[in-house]
Amino acid sequence: MMNRALSIRSSNRSSGASTHSHGSSSTHAAPSRRGFSLSSLRGTIQPELSKRLFRLIKSANNLVSAHETAAKERISIATQLSEWGEQTNDEAISDVSDKVGVILSEMGEQEDTYAHALDDSRGTLKTIRNTEKSVQPSRDGRNKIADEIAKIKAKEPESTKLVVLEQELVRAEAENLVAEAQLTNITRQKLKEAYQAEFIATVERAEKQIILARHGLRLLQLLDDTPVVPGNARPRYENASQARQILNDAEDDLKDWRLPDGLLSTEGSEDGNFTTAGQSTPRQTQRQRSPKSPDGGSVTGGAQNGGGGVAEGKAAEIGA
Amino acid sequence: MMNRALSIRSSNRSSGASTHSHGSSSTHAAPSRRGFSLSSLRGTIQPELSKRLFRLIKSANNLVSAHETAAKERISIATQLSEWGEQTNDEAISDVSDKVGVILSEMGEQEDTYAHALDDSRGTLKTIRNTEKSVQPSRDGRNKIADEIAKIKAKEPESTKLVVLEQELVRAEAENLVAEAQLTNITRQKLKEAYQAEFIATVERAEKQIILARHGLRLLQLLDDTPVVPGNARPRYENASQARQILNDAEDDLKDWRLPDGLLSTEGSEDGNFTTAGQSTPRQTQRQRSPKSPDGGSVTGGAQNGGGGVAEGKAAEIGA
Repeated sequence: MMNRALSIRSSNRSSGASTHSHGSSSTHAAPSRRGFSLSSLRGTIQPELSKRLFRLIKSANNLVSAHETAAKERISIATQLSEWGEQTNDEAISDVSDKVGVILSEMGEQEDTYAHALDDSRGTLKTIRNTEKSVQPSRDGRNKIADEIAKIKAKEPESTKLVVLEQELVRAEAENLVAEAQLTNITRQKLKEAYQAEFIATVERAEKQIILARHGLRLLQLLDDTPVVPGNARPRYENASQARQILNDAEDDLKDWRLPDGLLSTEGSEDGNFTTAGQSTPRQTQRQRSPKSPDGGSVTGGAQNGGGGVAEGKAAEIGA
Repeated sequence: MMNRALSIRSSNRSSGASTHSHGSSSTHAAPSRRGFSLSSLRGTIQPELSKRLFRLIKSANNLVSAHETAAKERISIATQLSEWGEQTNDEAISDVSDKVGVILSEMGEQEDTYAHALDDSRGTLKTIRNTEKSVQPSRDGRNKIADEIAKIKAKEPESTKLVVLEQELVRAEAENLVAEAQLTNITRQKLKEAYQAEFIATVERAEKQIILARHGLRLLQLLDDTPVVPGNARPRYENASQARQILNDAEDDLKDWRLPDGLLSTEGSEDGNFTTAGQSTPRQTQRQRSPKSPDGGSVTGGAQNGGGGVAEGKAAEIGA
């Protein structure tokens, strides 16, 4: 388990992005190496900068759908199990299968909640993608002026155009400096926020499904599976009230569940030895998703609220 | 959460099964109320007795596929995240996204393992379905003779055929008694086994994904998301060795993980207050799926190994 390398990057490294941030002589995107499938054509209408995240967000949509489907099928199986158990005309199987069905159905509900949390996290990544998209024209504009200056300097070094162009370049570089600061601020904050939310949702689904699975195992213990010989009757089923109690216990445990403390702190988890969630966790603990992200200063606020690039990004978001 | 009723059975109760087990005057299946969709036509070629489980096993197949898809997408997203991070040319984002990618990829592997466990559990349910199928002809045969006796008694009460038919009925009832014992034995054992395996797989996926999510949260803490003002450089990223250490910790925790003790015992979990898995769990604990199921006596062995009905069931299993 997990004995792969400490990186999962594939060996053929793309240099598409560095073309834009370092080179000033060319603003053309690297030619696509993916052929002409529908998905790769869709990818190429995105600016180079936001292309990768655009694809990742599409994959995340498939992930959300898969967990939604799992939730739906789980809930459907729960009902089918209960109804199958009833038609066996075996009181013990009927009762246990119905109550195991209740447990499975709630496991499905938890799966669905998880899918929604993944979708929220996906929405957070879109903010990064939209900022990437809006920063692209700023880089392109600056590079275009720098290219023009280089061209004129080579052909007519004494041209009076150069003074104006160099003033324009200073302005473009100032604008780009702000754009790049917005990009790094948004990217770091939202990347952290998106995956913190995703990991916390993973812990929540996991702990609640553990509660349910353990009570499910208790229910199965109520089903006597000692083989009978033909003609002998089974002992009467007398565990109905115990089975009801197990469901009550499961419901109480889910109600009492709180997110473990310290999930978002740097201390206390360094040794990899985590405390478990349970009744010992105080009730007043509130679920907190991203306590560290600031309210958004002027630098980050600009990228979120203004600019044609962002509006363009919003339109793409609706279509995504 | 889970504030539904203590049963999930739908209110319109089917009486299809009781027709067969109690009534002796009719062996015809109740007319289908589902219209002529492909799935309901497929359902009706199954004997009435195994129809519900046949459908449940089909739904379980969809559930397995959904978790397989989730695993595949998760692993794909992990690589995409790492490669996106690299092209940001931000050393901190590049390192953290790559290592979060490793965590996500391992979460995907756990999801895939879970899907396989669900598929195994589905295979166990097929044993019940096949036994149901093989018991149906025995019930039908007995009912057919009983019907014939009733008919003759009404028309020609002195018929000499009656003696032979009543001998045949005694034999058919003896055969059916064995078949019904096989059915109840297999059904209880395999139902318990299937869902014990499923709940244990749920605990395993959950606990391993909690380990991964918690280390993932530690990784995200290494990413400084304090906003910078335009023109100011970020402090140098110096957390690379810490990030590597977190991946090592995650790998060690997964290696040390053992299934919690007492999952299959009736005692120690009655209060709903479970102990957590962790380093305190002794290493020698072996994963045990169904310690209670016997090796299969003559009664259960017969249903598993012999009879045309079972062979028929096996053929359907391949096609399912």
